[in-house]
Order: sequence, then structure tokens, then C-alpha cells
Amino acid sequence: MVTEDLDAVVDDWPDRIREGSLSAVARQAADLSLPDLVWVLERLRVRDRAIVFRLLPKSLAHEVFERFDDGLKGELFTSLRDDQVVSLFSDLDPDDRVHVMDELPATVAKKLLQGLSKHERELTAPILGYDRGSIGRWMSTEFVRVLEGQTVAAALMQIRQRGRDAETIYTVPVTDTAKRLVGVVSLRELMLADPEILVSEVMNEPISVTASEADETAARLCLDAQVLALPVVDKEDRLVGILTVDDAVRITAVAEEEDAARAGAMEPLGRPYLSTPVRTLVRTRVVWLLLLAVSAVATVGVLDHFEDDLAAVVTLAVFIPLLIGTGGNTGSQAAVTITRALALGDVRARDVGVVLFREVRTGAVLGALLGTLALGAISLVAVFVDGYTAEIGVVVAASMLAICTLAASVGGVIPLFAKAVKIDPAVMSTPFIATFVDATGLILYFVIAKLVLGI
Amino acid sequence: MVTEDLDAVVDDWPDRIREGSLSAVARQAADLSLPDLVWVLERLRVRDRAIVFRLLPKSLAHEVFERFDDGLKGELFTSLRDDQVVSLFSDLDPDDRVHVMDELPATVAKKLLQGLSKHERELTAPILGYDRGSIGRWMSTEFVRVLEGQTVAAALMQIRQRGRDAETIYTVPVTDTAKRLVGVVSLRELMLADPEILVSEVMNEPISVTASEADETAARLCLDAQVLALPVVDKEDRLVGILTVDDAVRITAVAEEEDAARAGAMEPLGRPYLSTPVRTLVRTRVVWLLLLAVSAVATVGVLDHFEDDLAAVVTLAVFIPLLIGTGGNTGSQAAVTITRALALGDVRARDVGVVLFREVRTGAVLGALLGTLALGAISLVAVFVDGYTAEIGVVVAASMLAICTLAASVGGVIPLFAKAVKIDPAVMSTPFIATFVDATGLILYFVIAKLVLGI
Repeated sequence: MVTEDLDAVVDDWPDRIREGSLSAVARQAADLSLPDLVWVLERLRVRDRAIVFRLLPKSLAHEVFERFDDGLKGELFTSLRDDQVVSLFSDLDPDDRVHVMDELPATVAKKLLQGLSKHERELTAPILGYDRGSIGRWMSTEFVRVLEGQTVAAALMQIRQRGRDAETIYTVPVTDTAKRLVGVVSLRELMLADPEILVSEVMNEPISVTASEADETAARLCLDAQVLALPVVDKEDRLVGILTVDDAVRITAVAEEEDAARAGAMEPLGRPYLSTPVRTLVRTRVVWLLLLAVSAVATVGVLDHFEDDLAAVVTLAVFIPLLIGTGGNTGSQAAVTITRALALGDVRARDVGVVLFREVRTGAVLGALLGTLALGAISLVAVFVDGYTAEIGVVVAASMLAICTLAASVGGVIPLFAKAVKIDPAVMSTPFIATFVDATGLILYFVIAKLVLGI
Repeated sequence: MVTEDLDAVVDDWPDRIREGSLSAVARQAADLSLPDLVWVLERLRVRDRAIVFRLLPKSLAHEVFERFDDGLKGELFTSLRDDQVVSLFSDLDPDDRVHVMDELPATVAKKLLQGLSKHERELTAPILGYDRGSIGRWMSTEFVRVLEGQTVAAALMQIRQRGRDAETIYTVPVTDTAKRLVGVVSLRELMLADPEILVSEVMNEPISVTASEADETAARLCLDAQVLALPVVDKEDRLVGILTVDDAVRITAVAEEEDAARAGAMEPLGRPYLSTPVRTLVRTRVVWLLLLAVSAVATVGVLDHFEDDLAAVVTLAVFIPLLIGTGGNTGSQAAVTITRALALGDVRARDVGVVLFREVRTGAVLGALLGTLALGAISLVAVFVDGYTAEIGVVVAASMLAICTLAASVGGVIPLFAKAVKIDPAVMSTPFIATFVDATGLILYFVIAKLVLGI
């Protein structure tokens, strides 16, 4: 992948399209590797993307389409001719089909579903039966299964016969005759085994998920277990689908993007940055920014309340950004750590006691360290500069200790509470905690100042 | 995976170990699924983990070991008997072996390497020849390749014969007789093809990486291309190894953890939160916190400079946390967006002009919106409360506009500069930018205040 060349392509195609040299574009598109072609298309404007897409041979177009983010898929659909939409839709894997339907107006989605062949509709229906956010929405209903009572030779024969349309043939679920999952066998194990023995003799204990399980949990299980596919079962332990590793990767990538965005007080873009209009950038940011600004009005209230003390000792104002900045950073460190540990299943909401105890100690150590440094620095400055005194050093140092301890505790605990009441912990992370710590930190600062300075 | 039961196990085993009921622990361990067992072990204390590990049957112990984070692997090694270490080490995949060596003292690593059989040493040496951080360090040297001139039947026979030790047999690189990569063929394609035709007739264009490529770039290519394995070649395009999807997942997971940690101004833990000692938590956080606090001394300098103006209009101090908080949030939004876009390859350092133009507009729109709201609110308050005036409303509104525009631009551009000078962009993200924006934002605020209020 020579990136320089790809940049040239992104710059070049819109010009070619405007001069009408579509066949040149089509030739170049055919020469690119699939990931490169997807990369280039994602960077074009909506209109140009649709034009190039229509130039692609049908099978290539379908492969490209499958790799787009869901947001781009919906957008592209609305700019294609009806017959192209129908052909594309019926060629998608059943689970991808459901994700595209989620992006389209309900009436359009319904019409498309009705246009499918009976077989394809039957493959799609079970997926539509599960809630958004559950792994049932991501499972593939096109899979090969074998029976525990079959011989290895018979199982291999069956895989050869039915394997062409299956999503994968490398991890094969084993069931009893009632379709209940009893094991998993890899194609490698089948190929290396004695053809005359029974499948039950080579199969392994299955690691599986229920179709109603949260998609992120199931995806992480698939990746943690390092399997290429995970059987999906219904409540009666009957096999209903499989989750393949590429879908597990996609699910966690979307979840990571969401967590990263939320940690930065935004909604995820769901599409490449450069193909996102500025108004969409504003929309993903404005709600959180407003909400945080409104919460920050609490700091205005606190300072207004202590305005007389500020007027008496203006030097106190000088340390406000340092103190609340450090508090925000300490809170953010704890929040990021715990939010991630929650996402990975390393801590659960019920670990709140342990987490609090650990974070109080961590925050106190950090605060004591920074406070000591601040005391030393301010005492030194006090020798040379008017307005600074060792007492102010003591106020800043004690506030640093108090604020860091508070910030680490709040930062560690808030994500756990969020999880317990089923809010995305990432929403509650960095900026929210910083704003909360700002206001309470200022109260601590002025209370300590009044005590030490006697104002 | 019934999590409640696993919690009980984590609580129970240390007690059992202390009373000496090791056989009960061994029995329970054998009953757990592999991912569950790993989950439980990661949560035990170092000493208990080593004791349980020694109770496991050898093959299970090796499978468990492979799944630990690299940090835990090194720790465990030092608490095992020499013969166990030697057996474990020689049983590891060559690439995992190299990663464990990176965690051990050089003398120990060298001794272990010399203790390997000639064959295993030959498999390990090529991996050691590539730099840390390159994909060569992650490639598997145990792979099956087939020749373009072979028939499908002969290729299948070869896979059956040599496939037992190979990391994967599902994606098979195709080479010419000089070992140069010419294609890739999946086992599925081979199984479904006419056995008499040549491999060259069923193989596909290979997507490959050079062994010196950055590991994260190669891993993302593997995941984006949705392949189960990616051939790795040397500078002469000769096949030297393969990267499998599970290693690609592992590489990106480590990179994501690093980015998330850096975005929160920390070093990554590299291990589960609850098994991390508090002193390690402090260590991962203290350096960044200190660095940021020292940078925040700039804000003290700015406010000290404007102290007379603050004394003249104390009300100005009241809006400091709101303004710098909003600036920090706006900068963080832009920084998180661009850092992530960089990691995904959606923008490059050379896109700095486009990014700046987009972020200036986004920041200006957000600042204008928040500024207007602030002007309205303060004007309203000014009617009822002494000390607040419409002029102060104008100062805050204009500062909001200026600070948001500045923050979004700086937040968008700094990660690109970091990338250009080969610093991890995530290091430069949220807290660093917040601290920078704090100091410059305060200068803007006071300059605007002096202009509008004439102080």
C-alpha cells in the first residue's frame, strides 16, 4: 500500500469525474487492492463516491460495500438506482443486511425485505428477531454444522457440499439431532483426524454465547478465547447462528470508537474524519459542551460565594487554574483507568469498595507529593515576592492533597455507579468528572484558606 | 460464563491454598473453561497465581500461559522452578517466546535461548532479527506454504502433512520456487476446487506486509482486509512469516490501551487493574501529573501578571474556571477526534491545512453559540446582582468565542505535529492541550477584559 499514490488518486478522481473520463477512473479502481479502494472511496465526497461506486463491476462493488461503515452504507443506498439497491441488498450477508436496514427509513427497509427471495428472507428473519445491541443482530445464519454421531469422513463431505455459502467452514459447531450444541470442531482437526472415527471423538467443549447477550460482551469473549468463530445459541441451547472473528473485531472497534469519543465528551462520528461535514462535527460536540458548560456554572456560583475572600486575598485567585487543572487531571486518570477496566471486564460495579480504597490511597500519595513541591516552591517565592507568604503555600499544599484524594476517588467510583444504573461509564468519564471536581475542589480550597489565613 | 461463580472462586482459592487443600483447587481449575481460568488467575495475588499455575497439567498450563499479558508472563517466570521454565519456554510459539524474552533480564533470556533445540532456535532467530515495534516481532515462522506450480491435490496433501505444527492452515501463502510470495489461497478455496488444476489457477492477489513495517500498521491492515492471516515478506519479497488475526487483535488491543491511557495522561498498566499494586498505579500516573502541574505554573504566571486587573474587577476571577474548563473540553474534543483518526489512518500529518480549516470553523461555531448564551445569562443576572454588568457579559462572550476557536485549532493540529516529529500523538492529547489552552486562554481573557472594560 503506497500511501502517496493513494493520496494522488483521491485528489485526481474528482477532476476526472468532472471532465467525464469515467473509463479511466474505472480502470484505476480495478487496479487497486480492495482495502486501498475502500480507503479511497471513503475519502471522496458523497456524490463522487456514488459515481465511482456505480462504475465498479458488480461483485467488486458488493465486496467494497460490505466494508464501508454503516453510516456510509445508508448514505450510499439513497444515491443508487432502485435495481442496484435491490441487487446489492439481496447479495449482502443476512447480518449485514439487518445493519443496513437499521440505517434506512422503516418503509424502505420493509420494502427491501419483502423483495428478497424466500430463502434469503428466512435467513434474515431470525436476526431481526433479536434486539439492537444484542449479539443476535450480528450472528451469521449461514453456517455449516455437523452431527456428533457422524464420522469424520461424512462431516468433511458435508462441509464440502454445503460450505460454499457458509460464512466460515473453519470452526464447525457440532450438535445432537435436536440441534442442541454439544461441541465445536475445527476443520484442521477434522482434516488431520482418522476419517473413520466419530465427530464426538475429536470435538472440543464448546465456548458459546446466548443470542440475547450484549454484543460487546460476546465479541470480547470471541477475541479473548482466540477462536475464529463462536456458536450462538437460543435459550434452549439450540444453535441459531455463529459469530465470526471479523464481526467481533468490528463490534469492538465500534465500541472503542464510542468509548474514545465519550471520553472526549463527544458522540462518535461513525465515519472517517475527512468525509464528515463540519456541521456534523459541531453536532457531535455541541450537546456535551453545553451540558458541561452548564455544570461549570456551579464553579461561578462557588466563586461568587467566596468573592469577598477573593477580594481580601487576590493572590488566592492566582492558584485556581493550577489546582483545578491538577484535580481534573487526577480525576481523569482514575476515570480512564476504571472505565477501561470495566470495558475489559477487569472490574465490576460490585468492586466499588476495593476501587475506592485503592484510589483514595493513590490520590493521597499523588496529592501529598505535589503538595509538598508546591509548599517548597511558594515558600521560596515568598522570600522574594510581595503578596506570597508561607501561609499561602500551606493553603495550596493542603488543597492539593485534599483535591487529588477527592478527584481520584470520584474519578474511580463514578464510572462504577454509572455502570450500576446502566449508563455508559465512558459518558461519565473525564470531562464530567473534571467539572464536578472543579466545583467541589474550589469549595475545599476556600474552606482551607479561611481556616489557615483566618479570613 | 457465570461471573458470580468466578468471583467466588477468586475469593475461595487463596483460603484453600492457605489450608493446604491444593487437590481441591486443582480439581476446580480443571473444570473451568480456558478463558474463565485465565480470568481467575489474573485476579489472584502473584504468589497464589504461581501456586495454582504449578498445579495445572502441563498442556493446560502452557495454554493458560500463552493468554496472559506479557507483564504477567515475565512475573510468573521468575516464580517457577528452572525445569518448568525451560519446558514452558520451549513449548511457546516462537513469536510469544520473543515477547517473553523482552520481559526477562538479558542474561536469563540468552540462557533460555541457548537451551532450545536447534530447530526451535532456528524458528526463533528470524523474529529476534527485527526491531521491537516492527511486525517481524509478531510474525509466526511456523507456517505452511504451497508452490504456484503444484496441483490443488498436492497442495492439500502438503497441508495435511505439515499442518500439525503450523500456526494456521486456513490462509496459505503461495510462492515461486525462489520463495518469493506470488499469491494467497484459502483452505476453503483449495477444498472446493478441482483437485487436478494448478494452485496458480485458484490463488488470489496477495495482501502482504514487510517485516520491518510498524506492528500497529500491519495489524490494522490485517483487520481492515478481514483476512485470517497476512503473509510477511522481507525486502526482496521473500516469504519470512505470517501474521495471524489473533496476534493482530492483540497488537491493536495493546495500542488501544496505550492510546486510552495516554489520553488520560498516564502510562498503560499492561495488566488487569485489580492485580496492579497501588505503587504501580502511582508510578503510571505521577510523571504525567507532575509534568502537567509544572506546565500549569504558566497559568500562575499569567494570573500573577494580571493581578492588579483582578484586584480592580474581582468579578473577573469568578468566570476563570468556566472559561478554561470550556476551552479544555473543546480542545479535548478536537484532540481525541484527530488522534483517533490518525490511529485509523483516516488523516495523515500532511493533512494539517485541511484539519486546521475544519477545526477553526467548528471551534468558532461552538464558541459563538456558547458565547451568545453566556452574554444572555450574564446580562440577565446584571439586572439583579451588583458587580455583574453587561460589559462583563461581552468580555465573557468574546473570550468564549476566542478560546473555543483557539482550543479546537490547537487540539486538532498538535496531534498532527506530534505525529510528524514521531512522538505518539496520544501523548500530546487531552491534558497536555488543556494545560496549554488554560494559559493562552487566560491571556486572551484578560486582554479582551482590558480592551472592553478599559482597565
